[in-house]
Amino acid sequence: MRLSRYFMPILKENPKEAEIVSHRLMLRAGMIRQQSQGIYSWLPLGKRVLDKVNAIVREEQNRAGAIELSMPTLQSAELWQESGRYDAYGKEMLRIRDRQDRPMLYGPTNEEMVTDIFRSYVKSYKDLPLNLYHIQLKFRDEIRPRFGTMRSREFLMKDAYSFDLTREGAEHSYRKMFAAYLRTFSRLGLRAIPMRADTGPIGGNLSHEFIILADTGESEVFSHKDFVNFDIPSADTDFDDVAGLQSIFDQWTSVYAATSEMHDEAAFSAIPEAERLSARGIEVGHIFYFGEKYSEPMGAKVQGPDGKEHFVHMGSYGIGPTRLVPAIIEASHDENGIIWPASVAPFDIVVINMKSGDEACDSACEKLYSAFMKAGKDVLLDDRDDRAGTKFATADLIGVPVQVIVGPRSVASGEVEVKDRKTGARETMTIEAAVNRLVG
Amino acid sequence: MRLSRYFMPILKENPKEAEIVSHRLMLRAGMIRQQSQGIYSWLPLGKRVLDKVNAIVREEQNRAGAIELSMPTLQSAELWQESGRYDAYGKEMLRIRDRQDRPMLYGPTNEEMVTDIFRSYVKSYKDLPLNLYHIQLKFRDEIRPRFGTMRSREFLMKDAYSFDLTREGAEHSYRKMFAAYLRTFSRLGLRAIPMRADTGPIGGNLSHEFIILADTGESEVFSHKDFVNFDIPSADTDFDDVAGLQSIFDQWTSVYAATSEMHDEAAFSAIPEAERLSARGIEVGHIFYFGEKYSEPMGAKVQGPDGKEHFVHMGSYGIGPTRLVPAIIEASHDENGIIWPASVAPFDIVVINMKSGDEACDSACEKLYSAFMKAGKDVLLDDRDDRAGTKFATADLIGVPVQVIVGPRSVASGEVEVKDRKTGARETMTIEAAVNRLVG
Repeated sequence: MRLSRYFMPILKENPKEAEIVSHRLMLRAGMIRQQSQGIYSWLPLGKRVLDKVNAIVREEQNRAGAIELSMPTLQSAELWQESGRYDAYGKEMLRIRDRQDRPMLYGPTNEEMVTDIFRSYVKSYKDLPLNLYHIQLKFRDEIRPRFGTMRSREFLMKDAYSFDLTREGAEHSYRKMFAAYLRTFSRLGLRAIPMRADTGPIGGNLSHEFIILADTGESEVFSHKDFVNFDIPSADTDFDDVAGLQSIFDQWTSVYAATSEMHDEAAFSAIPEAERLSARGIEVGHIFYFGEKYSEPMGAKVQGPDGKEHFVHMGSYGIGPTRLVPAIIEASHDENGIIWPASVAPFDIVVINMKSGDEACDSACEKLYSAFMKAGKDVLLDDRDDRAGTKFATADLIGVPVQVIVGPRSVASGEVEVKDRKTGARETMTIEAAVNRLVG
Repeated sequence: MRLSRYFMPILKENPKEAEIVSHRLMLRAGMIRQQSQGIYSWLPLGKRVLDKVNAIVREEQNRAGAIELSMPTLQSAELWQESGRYDAYGKEMLRIRDRQDRPMLYGPTNEEMVTDIFRSYVKSYKDLPLNLYHIQLKFRDEIRPRFGTMRSREFLMKDAYSFDLTREGAEHSYRKMFAAYLRTFSRLGLRAIPMRADTGPIGGNLSHEFIILADTGESEVFSHKDFVNFDIPSADTDFDDVAGLQSIFDQWTSVYAATSEMHDEAAFSAIPEAERLSARGIEVGHIFYFGEKYSEPMGAKVQGPDGKEHFVHMGSYGIGPTRLVPAIIEASHDENGIIWPASVAPFDIVVINMKSGDEACDSACEKLYSAFMKAGKDVLLDDRDDRAGTKFATADLIGVPVQVIVGPRSVASGEVEVKDRKTGARETMTIEAAVNRLVG
């Protein structure tokens, strides 16, 4: 992408409304724009990051055997009357009447709808286990939306729903998502700690929140420090291996970790003081096992091997991609801007033309740009008619992992500078060497 | 994907509510499910097709220089009061009040919002031309939603918006999208005819609808038969070449074509009778040039090279992916089911195990399945415990372009049958030959 033809409205001033660093940097880098309270557009740079986050979430859901569909945003109130949540959900649910005056709502979550889909088609235990997910917009009419897309009203959620014949089966389905979430967050450059959590309006018996540590987090968290040493499940994890997933789950739940709602001061005090971690965190995922909570009132049942009908055991599993983007920034930035993990960077490489219009610089930049494009890299070429200092500041702000700097002096001897955004390390090398290094 | 682990609820009976063949086949193939009137879930098979359609739409938008962002579904009423459309839009607009009693709406289109984004950031003609698009859900509260996702209330739309300093520039931007649309429909296996059209509630001076011919179409269309001979712009079309795009546009608008709203009986009668085409069609795209209709009331202006401020000239360009899927089916099916063009097929290949549980069949199927997977093909393995006849019917119904049939008799001599869904042609060959043929 040539920056001269791109739409990336960088703000020079720090926006006053932004209280936390991720919100500030997302506005400054031209990633998002608030359209009304708690409702955001994702501008092109932000959209690129969001797409990469979604792609990783999707890959890990698929790897764990979940199947993607897409449910609509608007739901009929009737479904929620069946489950009993229509009245219970309160003011966070955006209630709507259509032109026929039928009561509708903008889905805050999809337990009812997916249960309705399930009961319409699945009749036998032979079609289980089943896990259906989508990545779809949700709306929760928060009284106090804030922190940009960290807590917005219209937001994107990946929500998966598992269906099993038995409680044991459902617990295995739960552990599949548990392991998939560990992999997902790790690939996003985050170290997330699973914590026993309150089940809230979703309900149920078993629930974990995945929390990453950040000073700006809304949750108070207490845990053992051992979490940093636990292994992330590998890419070839066998998600059908019940014992294998059990042992991953057992390790990750073997030491103390809880949010303030579930905190047990006595248990926490029993940990040697040097191994205690008390901090603030951001919830980036939440998984639930809730058995027959929806299947029973909504009549979602299958015939078992015994010939009898059984209500299915269900779980639900949520990750918020529009929250993950700021969470990643909270975990990875410096005073100059964002530092993207390579897996979600909007561009892999930015080529900085220090002197647009200079023939040697332009030609070296074009050569690099086309070599990187040809190799399938996402590359941004800063070909704007602007000062070199402005371009350096932009590159640091938007956090592209590698900068290739093309200046009139070095290019005269066929050389460019390669800068690592994270470490700040710079290295001078020939154009060919830069291509080989970054394409290889 | 192993069908035994997939979620593809095939209906055996023809659903009574479906009036047209695409709706019937989408329901029977388990692609969609109606959740409330005119509001659909896309089940996994349908989601796969929709994703492929979106990917082609996106590639062609990007090729033509449009830049992707994502605007939210909910909009504030204020924006629409600025343009004057809030009162004008009528009952198709879904009006909502949030918990603070602020008037909102579910966007039926995004001219106002994108103009608001534009005016917030762009101040100089140097940043033009600009074309911003997104692929986002829309809601239009149709009085009579019907034909499945062909005319639904919640639907997906790709809407692009161009901004130019001058009318001439805007007309070039219009022709870029005109050419991009020709390419898009062609890659989807459709022959679309651009027709002068009424501008409706979007407004403006110049507008074309893209229509594909189908007996079930809602529009009556009149055109010259020459359209079938015109060339589709090639993949290396230079979208900056003003004269080049002009000549594509000129050819495609050189002969008579109009929907009934714009029909000129005298002009049509002037065409020799043998060259007249009078038929029904489905609108699959609509493009508009409307100048300053939104920029002037909303104050979207830039400084020109003359140092003065000018309202920008705008256009908008819509394609409905959730309508394109049934439109493709209307254009490509037979009595046994859907016949997908390869570009949007949910799977490239289906491997049919005629006798699941038979050791030789199972092992040949696994060999084929993993060879195709390894080659990056989207492959479905029908490993269900079911009769061969049922599997053949399913494969025909869901329209996967190539079937590889593994039966106990032929597999004994190391052979399988390869069937082309479209032509019905079958060929017996060794497993190795089948892999080479389909992977090559």
